[in-house]
Amino acid sequence: MGKTLAEKILSEKSGTEAIPGDIVTVPVDFVFSHDGTMPLAIQQMEKELGTRKVFDPLKVGGICDHASPSPSEQVSNVQIFMRKFARENNMPYFFENGDGICHQIVAEKFSAPGKIIIGGDSHTCTHGALAAFGTGMGSTDVGAIMAYGTTWLRVPESFKFQIDGELPEHVTSKDVFLHIVKEITADGATYMSMEFTGSTVKNMTVDSRLVMSNMAIEAGGKVGLCSSDEKVRQFLAKHGRENEYKELSADKDAVYKDELHIDASKLVPYIAYPHRVDNVKPVTDFAGMELQQVCIGSCTNGRLEDLKVAAEILKGKKVHKDTRLVVYAASRGVMMEAMKAGYIQTLIEAGAAVCPPGCGFCIGRTVALGDGEKVLSTQNRNFKGRMGNNKSEIYLSNVPVAAVSAIYGKVTDPREVL
Amino acid sequence: MGKTLAEKILSEKSGTEAIPGDIVTVPVDFVFSHDGTMPLAIQQMEKELGTRKVFDPLKVGGICDHASPSPSEQVSNVQIFMRKFARENNMPYFFENGDGICHQIVAEKFSAPGKIIIGGDSHTCTHGALAAFGTGMGSTDVGAIMAYGTTWLRVPESFKFQIDGELPEHVTSKDVFLHIVKEITADGATYMSMEFTGSTVKNMTVDSRLVMSNMAIEAGGKVGLCSSDEKVRQFLAKHGRENEYKELSADKDAVYKDELHIDASKLVPYIAYPHRVDNVKPVTDFAGMELQQVCIGSCTNGRLEDLKVAAEILKGKKVHKDTRLVVYAASRGVMMEAMKAGYIQTLIEAGAAVCPPGCGFCIGRTVALGDGEKVLSTQNRNFKGRMGNNKSEIYLSNVPVAAVSAIYGKVTDPREVL
Repeated sequence: MGKTLAEKILSEKSGTEAIPGDIVTVPVDFVFSHDGTMPLAIQQMEKELGTRKVFDPLKVGGICDHASPSPSEQVSNVQIFMRKFARENNMPYFFENGDGICHQIVAEKFSAPGKIIIGGDSHTCTHGALAAFGTGMGSTDVGAIMAYGTTWLRVPESFKFQIDGELPEHVTSKDVFLHIVKEITADGATYMSMEFTGSTVKNMTVDSRLVMSNMAIEAGGKVGLCSSDEKVRQFLAKHGRENEYKELSADKDAVYKDELHIDASKLVPYIAYPHRVDNVKPVTDFAGMELQQVCIGSCTNGRLEDLKVAAEILKGKKVHKDTRLVVYAASRGVMMEAMKAGYIQTLIEAGAAVCPPGCGFCIGRTVALGDGEKVLSTQNRNFKGRMGNNKSEIYLSNVPVAAVSAIYGKVTDPREVL
Repeated sequence: MGKTLAEKILSEKSGTEAIPGDIVTVPVDFVFSHDGTMPLAIQQMEKELGTRKVFDPLKVGGICDHASPSPSEQVSNVQIFMRKFARENNMPYFFENGDGICHQIVAEKFSAPGKIIIGGDSHTCTHGALAAFGTGMGSTDVGAIMAYGTTWLRVPESFKFQIDGELPEHVTSKDVFLHIVKEITADGATYMSMEFTGSTVKNMTVDSRLVMSNMAIEAGGKVGLCSSDEKVRQFLAKHGRENEYKELSADKDAVYKDELHIDASKLVPYIAYPHRVDNVKPVTDFAGMELQQVCIGSCTNGRLEDLKVAAEILKGKKVHKDTRLVVYAASRGVMMEAMKAGYIQTLIEAGAAVCPPGCGFCIGRTVALGDGEKVLSTQNRNFKGRMGNNKSEIYLSNVPVAAVSAIYGKVTDPREVL
């Protein structure tokens, strides 16, 4: 019987014929956590397993990204606790304030087709864009993996997203996912392997695929996988890891629990409105709504192509006087490339506050909204209070909508004005 | 009888023969406040004067710099309160998160020889470097000035700092001031006009002079004045305000309450150690002390020449793995210039977290230390807890010492290793 991508990876890694529902044990190629969750993982290691020693210092990463830099002594102390652990274990892959968001760093340095990537963060499904089985786990599981290097997984059933056709101008992979979550709802793919395929996906850059895989968890997905191809090989080559490439795709006769066919040419820019990611309507429904803040960045849309689009739209323009624009690149590498290309300079000249790479605004830890403020953000979640204030409203969009809305100070459809 | 710089400015502005001890009333050329103090100033206006209307919207500024961007809903709400006030009053000079530190913005856009500049911040003495009578006031006074445009001042006595000779390599105007405060102590010039003169000052850039004037308050100074000269004219011209230049210097026969003569060639890089600015010893006394964080920026040392020196030292180097380097440019203008010159790129490549222009680390509001951490910073104050943690230690230095110490992860004398 043919296998889906998830079944293929788990079969190979477990040395079994992984069938949905099976419990398999797999070695973990890379496990990581961040300043939001790693301290708890370390504590769980100590408490439950009586050890602070990692199974392999080359396969365990720690990243200070959630508060980068930390704005409070409490979080600074948490980071000290992490550094101490990393030093004790001689972990070379400890990333500091300003190095970037865990998922981007791991995508650049560790993810590759067929790997098992476990992170102490729900958006670890990001790595599916590189055909890695990436998934987030709680701190007890992460602690156990840091100690032993293996984990068990229930083999997920798979949900195929057959996406064909050309995306219209100013419609991006973010809109593809917002369309999906609108169609299937926030629990429409719970514990399933969401597998994105079709000509639209094939034509997408890796940066664009990472957006969809990143958001898989927003529909409940266990993973969000794409086949590997020449673009993935080039991505790995760019980061000095071409040797980690292998071709991986689902079998033609793979069996899916469900399928959704999408005609990409029919999609529009969407907005996910408060306080659920599956509250999705066309941007036109919100046109003209005033915004106090616009945020571009996050592990969803903080990559080079995102900053390029934002800079092209904001070039020679100014952020509206009643709106702030906050920008975070996803990693130090992205930041360096974006500066080399002049994107950051353009954004700063337009009036943006460009922060050091990190999670920043998305979790309200280094940038917090005020009461009653409305923000349009390119991030993946709009839960109540996520951006540091229960009395604020978070709207999600793609980058072109965010960038053009920053200029007008209100939700603006780029198809209308660009 | 000859007049000091302070007496000259106050005489002209008050239309009297201002003599030390006199109370004079003067029109204020520019009054400003920031997100740390402006809300209280507005409240005082309302409560004490029954008005929210500023005397002249072109002469009142508001700057969001202390939490830029704001990491808490409380401060975000404070900024909303400020924005509302600025909009009500049609104030064009309201500066947003990421525009920069009030003192740098005001130096670039408003200060000029002979002007009276009042700020709701103790380091408003900064503007003395442009021969402006700049001084900080409490929020009640600032509120009254925002409403009426005038204030009273007791004419200060003057303290002359006669500084001659060439500064040795890696010794800067920061060291001149640290030497001064070591000699006269933190209350050695209380309510006096500190007037910096001599060949060393004459040869300094305006950026360098701003450092000494900025720190005048650290010795209790009411103002920290330098004569205006061709360099000041060029500074104003660069910012499109050459027409605001006028030559201003103390009379040869001016009478000073006190004088200190300094041979600049004898100075060394200094460190101000916890928890007082006048705890000053040569850098050599601290050589080898491990540092968890190094900070370059602030209204003291976040200007273009500071970032240039830092970038030159860090070019091709990496920040030590056990130390973080945090950098804040003093303003958006400085940031743009520093990017054009490649300094920011160099610093980020070396491992720095470069934050949007603002006060940031200096007041521990957007960057906070952890327990027991030692930080070396180019800022002006090392008071206990200032950087967000009572259990941390703040050491102050010039930029070369800070930059080279970031590479070695410990206090390092640039004269030894560069």
